[in-house]
Amino acid sequence: MDSAAEFRRDPISGRWVLIAPERARRPGCFPPRSEPAEAADSPADCPFCPGHEDQTPPEIQAEREAGGGPDRPGWRVRVVPNKYPAVGPEAAPAGGPIEFGERQPGVGAHEVVIETPHHDLELIDLPDEDAAAAWRMIRGRVRALEAEGGHPYVQVFKNRGREAGASRRHPHTQIAALPILPPRLAEEAAMFADWAARHGDCLLCRLLAAEIDDGRRVIHWNRAFAALAPFGSCFPYEVRLVPLAHAGSFADLPDGDLMDLAESLRRVLGLARRLFQNPAYNLVLYQAPMGKPGAGRETPFFHWHLDFLPILVTTAGFEWGTGIHINPVSPEEAAARFRTG
Amino acid sequence: MDSAAEFRRDPISGRWVLIAPERARRPGCFPPRSEPAEAADSPADCPFCPGHEDQTPPEIQAEREAGGGPDRPGWRVRVVPNKYPAVGPEAAPAGGPIEFGERQPGVGAHEVVIETPHHDLELIDLPDEDAAAAWRMIRGRVRALEAEGGHPYVQVFKNRGREAGASRRHPHTQIAALPILPPRLAEEAAMFADWAARHGDCLLCRLLAAEIDDGRRVIHWNRAFAALAPFGSCFPYEVRLVPLAHAGSFADLPDGDLMDLAESLRRVLGLARRLFQNPAYNLVLYQAPMGKPGAGRETPFFHWHLDFLPILVTTAGFEWGTGIHINPVSPEEAAARFRTG
Repeated sequence: MDSAAEFRRDPISGRWVLIAPERARRPGCFPPRSEPAEAADSPADCPFCPGHEDQTPPEIQAEREAGGGPDRPGWRVRVVPNKYPAVGPEAAPAGGPIEFGERQPGVGAHEVVIETPHHDLELIDLPDEDAAAAWRMIRGRVRALEAEGGHPYVQVFKNRGREAGASRRHPHTQIAALPILPPRLAEEAAMFADWAARHGDCLLCRLLAAEIDDGRRVIHWNRAFAALAPFGSCFPYEVRLVPLAHAGSFADLPDGDLMDLAESLRRVLGLARRLFQNPAYNLVLYQAPMGKPGAGRETPFFHWHLDFLPILVTTAGFEWGTGIHINPVSPEEAAARFRTG
Repeated sequence: MDSAAEFRRDPISGRWVLIAPERARRPGCFPPRSEPAEAADSPADCPFCPGHEDQTPPEIQAEREAGGGPDRPGWRVRVVPNKYPAVGPEAAPAGGPIEFGERQPGVGAHEVVIETPHHDLELIDLPDEDAAAAWRMIRGRVRALEAEGGHPYVQVFKNRGREAGASRRHPHTQIAALPILPPRLAEEAAMFADWAARHGDCLLCRLLAAEIDDGRRVIHWNRAFAALAPFGSCFPYEVRLVPLAHAGSFADLPDGDLMDLAESLRRVLGLARRLFQNPAYNLVLYQAPMGKPGAGRETPFFHWHLDFLPILVTTAGFEWGTGIHINPVSPEEAAARFRTG
């Protein structure tokens, strides 16, 4: 690809993006990282560190290899309610009828999965076994929240580093069970449903085969996962981890694939750390929305994936105004750079 | 409103937002402003400063009260092509057919309006007459680009401060003429069209009357503009400037209202500077999309507005994953705080 700009619509998300390599020459496009990426809290005042269990709300679940009671040290992974929830059990007052707009109580659940007892070991630094244990716990919480019913969507996301919105340094992932289907998911589900209606199979299974065949946007793959630079990447050096075997939800991930997920993600995070001096990043999980209670999932052909979004550029007025991200690095260039490490 | 979280759908943008006052108590939600908000360039190496006209591409247009030739000092407002364009005149190679996704050349125009010759005078610091001159120039360029045809949308936006994506300190606004209708605009146009189909009039004219009557989200108004905190504000302390007289496009703004726009915006910027220590911000203009060449505007009932987005919180994994912004400050609370200044 040369340096001319190009609009692309991502086949999975359905979103438009503007790939504009010329913008990479702009002063300050990739600002030097002069500040620590993490919030400056220390183990002494970290509520996620062992010994401080009384500083979080009572735990929801934990993995304790050596046994021991709840809300005490000795855990490997620990789940607690978010102390500052975006959604919660308490219903907002009805607020009365309104003439314009819509409103709905923010009822749901907002949990924090503390991935490790170690304050300073990031996800990438954990042995694959420990990272796999964190993902197993996340999978368990997704299953539990989906089984509760009443949550059309369960959103899993991770903020790492201040520029990515993390308020705590201690490694953690968040899970939000939401009372509405988020628009971003409705859009993606519509892409899968549209493809299935026309072809009778899974859009991402087909795309994955084509991408591996083509090769330009492939970063790596292992036994169970492929790492791709999405055709319509919104962020420079965005990576999409896709399970090779069809599965609608992360909740469906077999035990045997947890280590492959940990390994694939560790490789992606390692490349990003080496190339971009340990950037802030978000991880976002996309999976099939829930249907009505008892009806199962709405879109049988959805194929879950985990997106890695390194925060290397600033989202600005153009993006907020249009809904189209300007990405100064084509995914083909990003994948090539990742492949050569 | 108490502290329970609430999802809201903005009646104008059609977007869902999560108003979650509990999140405002989160550590670092409003981080202290320890760094200068502006990129650290100085007049000596600023290509937008008088005397450096040869450091930009040749000017497109300028206002010169005392006369003088192009690309020389003596201007009050100056428009140049963006040196690092997101879209440009050069067509991308066709790229051949693709099996998945869509692509379209990034053909269009990307201009920079240098609002003042003074490097350190921000928009808020300009006398209203000078700010009005900048808006008059922006209006002229929007008219010219729309008259060219072939641009389904002309996007006007301003990035001020590093956290808002500005790469230059010298005050400037950007204009991008785009070859596709941005999704954000399509969504908003659909809200206007839907209302018009059901009620036969303009959604925002009706909303404006209801908001002024209600008062809770009104910040101020003058002869020609109202400043409102949008019902579905995505950002804390977001403000929407709405022309009181119905008009689909900023291009329609009468000369006599330019000073009112400058005055209303200066008041908003002044409140933000006082309350939040001169925050980074984006301005985004929303106006009726263009129809096919010669067909005029597509949505006769669109009502243009200018949104002020102060960048006080970090957009994170939840927002990227769901498309729903978490806003820790209700617009009612924001308007009340703005009203008491």
